[in-house]
Amino acid sequence: MLIGIPNILSPELLKVLMEMGHGDEIVLADGNFPAASHARRLVRCDGHRLPELLDAVLKLFPLDTYVDKPVALMEVVPGDPVKTPIWDRYAEIVRQRSGLSDPFEKVERFAFYERTKQAYAVVATGESAQYANLILKKGVIRETE
Amino acid sequence: MLIGIPNILSPELLKVLMEMGHGDEIVLADGNFPAASHARRLVRCDGHRLPELLDAVLKLFPLDTYVDKPVALMEVVPGDPVKTPIWDRYAEIVRQRSGLSDPFEKVERFAFYERTKQAYAVVATGESAQYANLILKKGVIRETE
Amino acid sequence: MLIGIPNILSPELLKVLMEMGHGDEIVLADGNFPAASHARRLVRCDGHRLPELLDAVLKLFPLDTYVDKPVALMEVVPGDPVKTPIWDRYAEIVRQRSGLSDPFEKVERFAFYERTKQAYAVVATGESAQYANLILKKGVIRETE
Amino acid sequence: MLIGIPNILSPELLKVLMEMGHGDEIVLADGNFPAASHARRLVRCDGHRLPELLDAVLKLFPLDTYVDKPVALMEVVPGDPVKTPIWDRYAEIVRQRSGLSDPFEKVERFAFYERTKQAYAVVATGESAQYANLILKKGVIRETE
Amino acid sequence: MLIGIPNILSPELLKVLMEMGHGDEIVLADGNFPAASHARRLVRCDGHRLPELLDAVLKLFPLDTYVDKPVALMEVVPGDPVKTPIWDRYAEIVRQRSGLSDPFEKVERFAFYERTKQAYAVVATGESAQYANLILKKGVIRETE
Amino acid sequence: MLIGIPNILSPELLKVLMEMGHGDEIVLADGNFPAASHARRLVRCDGHRLPELLDAVLKLFPLDTYVDKPVALMEVVPGDPVKTPIWDRYAEIVRQRSGLSDPFEKVERFAFYERTKQAYAVVATGESAQYANLILKKGVIRETE
Amino acid sequence: MLIGIPNILSPELLKVLMEMGHGDEIVLADGNFPAASHARRLVRCDGHRLPELLDAVLKLFPLDTYVDKPVALMEVVPGDPVKTPIWDRYAEIVRQRSGLSDPFEKVERFAFYERTKQAYAVVATGESAQYANLILKKGVIRETE
Amino acid sequence: MLIGIPNILSPELLKVLMEMGHGDEIVLADGNFPAASHARRLVRCDGHRLPELLDAVLKLFPLDTYVDKPVALMEVVPGDPVKTPIWDRYAEIVRQRSGLSDPFEKVERFAFYERTKQAYAVVATGESAQYANLILKKGVIRETE
Amino acid sequence: MLIGIPNILSPELLKVLMEMGHGDEIVLADGNFPAASHARRLVRCDGHRLPELLDAVLKLFPLDTYVDKPVALMEVVPGDPVKTPIWDRYAEIVRQRSGLSDPFEKVERFAFYERTKQAYAVVATGESAQYANLILKKGVIRETE
Amino acid sequence: MLIGIPNILSPELLKVLMEMGHGDEIVLADGNFPAASHARRLVRCDGHRLPELLDAVLKLFPLDTYVDKPVALMEVVPGDPVKTPIWDRYAEIVRQRSGLSDPFEKVERFAFYERTKQAYAVVATGESAQYANLILKKGVIRETE
Repeated sequence: MLIGIPNILSPELLKVLMEMGHGDEIVLADGNFPAASHARRLVRCDGHRLPELLDAVLKLFPLDTYVDKPVALMEVVPGDPVKTPIWDRYAEIVRQRSGLSDPFEKVERFAFYERTKQAYAVVATGESAQYANLILKKGVIRETE
Repeated sequence: MLIGIPNILSPELLKVLMEMGHGDEIVLADGNFPAASHARRLVRCDGHRLPELLDAVLKLFPLDTYVDKPVALMEVVPGDPVKTPIWDRYAEIVRQRSGLSDPFEKVERFAFYERTKQAYAVVATGESAQYANLILKKGVIRETE
Repeated sequence: MLIGIPNILSPELLKVLMEMGHGDEIVLADGNFPAASHARRLVRCDGHRLPELLDAVLKLFPLDTYVDKPVALMEVVPGDPVKTPIWDRYAEIVRQRSGLSDPFEKVERFAFYERTKQAYAVVATGESAQYANLILKKGVIRETE
Repeated sequence: MLIGIPNILSPELLKVLMEMGHGDEIVLADGNFPAASHARRLVRCDGHRLPELLDAVLKLFPLDTYVDKPVALMEVVPGDPVKTPIWDRYAEIVRQRSGLSDPFEKVERFAFYERTKQAYAVVATGESAQYANLILKKGVIRETE
Repeated sequence: MLIGIPNILSPELLKVLMEMGHGDEIVLADGNFPAASHARRLVRCDGHRLPELLDAVLKLFPLDTYVDKPVALMEVVPGDPVKTPIWDRYAEIVRQRSGLSDPFEKVERFAFYERTKQAYAVVATGESAQYANLILKKGVIRETE
Repeated sequence: MLIGIPNILSPELLKVLMEMGHGDEIVLADGNFPAASHARRLVRCDGHRLPELLDAVLKLFPLDTYVDKPVALMEVVPGDPVKTPIWDRYAEIVRQRSGLSDPFEKVERFAFYERTKQAYAVVATGESAQYANLILKKGVIRETE
Repeated sequence: MLIGIPNILSPELLKVLMEMGHGDEIVLADGNFPAASHARRLVRCDGHRLPELLDAVLKLFPLDTYVDKPVALMEVVPGDPVKTPIWDRYAEIVRQRSGLSDPFEKVERFAFYERTKQAYAVVATGESAQYANLILKKGVIRETE
Repeated sequence: MLIGIPNILSPELLKVLMEMGHGDEIVLADGNFPAASHARRLVRCDGHRLPELLDAVLKLFPLDTYVDKPVALMEVVPGDPVKTPIWDRYAEIVRQRSGLSDPFEKVERFAFYERTKQAYAVVATGESAQYANLILKKGVIRETE
Repeated sequence: MLIGIPNILSPELLKVLMEMGHGDEIVLADGNFPAASHARRLVRCDGHRLPELLDAVLKLFPLDTYVDKPVALMEVVPGDPVKTPIWDRYAEIVRQRSGLSDPFEKVERFAFYERTKQAYAVVATGESAQYANLILKKGVIRETE
Repeated sequence: MLIGIPNILSPELLKVLMEMGHGDEIVLADGNFPAASHARRLVRCDGHRLPELLDAVLKLFPLDTYVDKPVALMEVVPGDPVKTPIWDRYAEIVRQRSGLSDPFEKVERFAFYERTKQAYAVVATGESAQYANLILKKGVIRETE
């Protein structure tokens, strides 16, 4: 553990977040997502809920301000009556941490899988809510400390 | 995820628990424990509390009934006024999962480190309570399914 | 060995089953199947019959309910008079474990090989019955434990 | 699979048996044995009973005729009333395959563990009978084929 | 060495032969063949003649009876007056071991190289006869032992 | 780069700092220190001065408050008239970051080397000042974030 | 450290520079560049400014005189009002070390990324100036020492 | 060192030469050649001149007599007035070792690079003469020793 | 294959012989020798007789002339009536290749095993004669080629 | 190749020299030295003479001025009448490069071997002169460039 680093972040995940650069993407995946089969780099975060993880990641990770929508959600399949209340929690966390009020792009399920294969890393959580997967695009830091 | 397997257990941890045999030991370590430097096999479980992990592990893992005390705690350093309320939770979990009412051995701090080096694996959690580390000794299963 | 886990499952196989996500596929291959040459991940299960393995896998592994036929069989080559009584055993096991009454898709031999190359893993058994190979597609678990 | 090779033997196990030379030892371990923690080379044979494996191994593997007792059993702990009927099956298999009528040495439990650490390999089976572990010492083949 | 296994077969080669399944191919290459540059898996068998190796392999290895010609030879380049007496020895060995009287397909040199790249393994021998390379296609074993 | 993390810290170094636990030690070595030959884990930080690195590390890394002197310096060899003004800068940085006013232990040169071999990691810098090497002992974090 | 070698160069970077040959390219990347995701070989140089690194590299590294522009800069995106004063420092360093007065090619951002993927190595620095990335093409040395 | 083997050949290079078969190619590269970036297998031979290496290689290595030109040189770029006196030394060495009087093919620079990528190995020397790179195609040995 | 190199020597064995220096030892082991369990480096030479291998090795390998007995044999166990006619062949080969008339030291069986563990490499052959194992100590080459 | 770096130094050797620190030792070994069996890190430099290598190394490598004799030679075995003229060349090179007039310590042969095992690296050359081995102890660099 380190001072000021949320302990939900593993040393490996912290290293991955830091290695990423402008425009690189990371997928925060729920417990049913086929993470191991689609990831170039897999970081496990079993048993954790996604909102807690998102909040910890955004404490350190700048979102890309060079694109309109730096966060992607998996689009609900047409005809599916499911509700996605977790998206409201995501919106609040992103607004508090990054100051963005409308950052979400919707991506069709299979397009989401293809984009996952190109992402820098995938984090496999234990989140059991539906349509809970997220893609975050990294932004730029100007002057450090 | 699999049917009936608690999702706090990572695939790697599940594999490790299954590879262990009679008399092998596993350490469940808190967030300040020097796990990486003392482990022969390290499994990370960052951000989780120890009682939840212990409960999940004991759902699958038999404790050794061939010894008097199959669970070891780290002894409070003489003179330290700290309280260890987490031990009561441990006692309740062990009694419910394994049916043992008095399974705890106390091990002096540096002896605990030495025994850790011989253990089959160490699980690094994010538990922040003091004196929360545990050693579990695996028992025997007679006839499976 | 672990409490409640069939001991025909190796630690490695259990880990693989757990790593898989929604839509990932696993091939249970008979003893003459070219498993090593077609597998991205190979798990050996030499000397075992396939029905016993299938029964143990389905105790833990949810089949995909988002597709009509979550289990694939290798289609009998046209003109081949062989009987496939093992399919009846498969049907009974799938019905008992997963509650599905008509889950089988038939796949032509070479299409079966191609799909094997895309599968998450292949399990090589010692089954000597003909046309005994199976592909299982993993489903979703809603709320764990 | 190969002509005349019992299919309970994995390719890896067959290779290990062949690599061994005069005086090298292999441990056939039951399902509760701490195999992974004591083995220099571990070969998994989950879910199989030990008599079937022993019979297959001895079809190919010569026992050492330069020592009195080329097979070791784990001695029953003094005071333990357990019966070991599996030893009778072992005796019959060894007599039929290798022609030896009294090949068994008894080794105290912890001495057995120490000898395991020096063995060339350990085979982890799913045998659930008690005191079922075996050590086999390899002998010599004069003129092959 | 093992009982009944020809000692010209290395442990590695035996393992490779056993891992192969129905339809997989293995190349037995002469001493001048570019084996290391064309092999997915290379097994060295330096200094040995090919007929002895072929005889040992076919003692254990079933040829494919689902194709007309389960053995391929490299076709003599048009205009080359060379004789290939070693093919007569091959024919005799295949007839004795596998009971096939006309199993040989001829493959043009560069097509032979391409097929080698797809083969499961290549065995590099020290055979110095010309046009001595062979491709064997593995068949099926019904009931073992 | 990450928000609030000094960019003199590499992803690898950040990971190492986070993996360490209570009582683990890290060596910050100057440019002439035999780091590669004495390190169990080596992290390179070529071209950097030690005070800048120390300041960045202590922003995240708690010093051990369970020992009197959680920082060790290499003792000046008796008779050596060299001055060590860099120690004053170290004292100031430690006081500002960790609030300790007298944290330095002096360790004889060869004892310092032996302790380095036991340390969790060594960071090789380009510092050219003399007697500039440091050993830091990690402390405990109570409640994170 | 070695005599005459700037200590900002790590042993790994020095090795990489030496392995490169005529026409090979190396990317010196700023702190926000997606280095880890685009590099075939990644060398970390965290916390350093690019002008210091460029100066040290060019002390040892010959630029290609067979092309007009052996150094590439990332072109400012059309409409971006940003200034790039660091380019003036680059120009002065290149003129002093390599004697070239107009060596800079401008490369569009995404073309720059593609060329990075083909480069022999990427060096990740901590430079925070904008448009500070560089590609260097290696030239020829005639007679050494 | 071995009896009769020139000591300019490293154990690794000798092994590589021996692994090659009929038609495989090896590149002997000068000091400025981009060897590391173009080689499938790289053998370093720093500081040596190419004629000495060529002479040692051809003592053991048969050139291909099935093609007209078993040795390739890099063609002088049109308009380049450079002289290539080293080619005369090559011609003499090849004639003495292999008995061929006109074995040289000329290959355009970028075609040479492409062919290098397909070669079995590249040997990186310290030769500083221009246009000194060579490709050797391996021939056949009939009866050894 | 290479000119003048016996083709019973594999590329790996040739490399090993060349890497060895003055005083290093290599064991040529018969088919029943426990080679894999005692070797620091194992080179397989299955199916070959030892005299042919010895003859090929000594064509390239100088024996140590700084000791009285550069070749060691395994001493016949006292009371064993076995004959060792293969020693006469060894004597003749050593005399012809190396010019030594009485080079053999006898080493007791278990001392032979201990010395094997210290040897640079062990070559596992298929020799079936008894007491056929050899240890060769490498000598010096003065001026090469 | 790099500007000002002697091309007898391989990239690997240059990296090793740079990784070493104060007090670390490197062995420059002649062609008959048992380098591969005694080295913790082996760098091959086949075919080169030792004086040329020594001269190139000392251009970059500072000798230790904290000990009386930073260079060790292997002592001539008592009674051996051999002359060691190469030592005079060494003395001249060391004097010219490092300015030391009497830097040589003599070390008995087997003590030399033991010290080699502790050295940071061993460089295997092709030097054929007798008693030509050297050990160099690295010194300190104060202010670089």
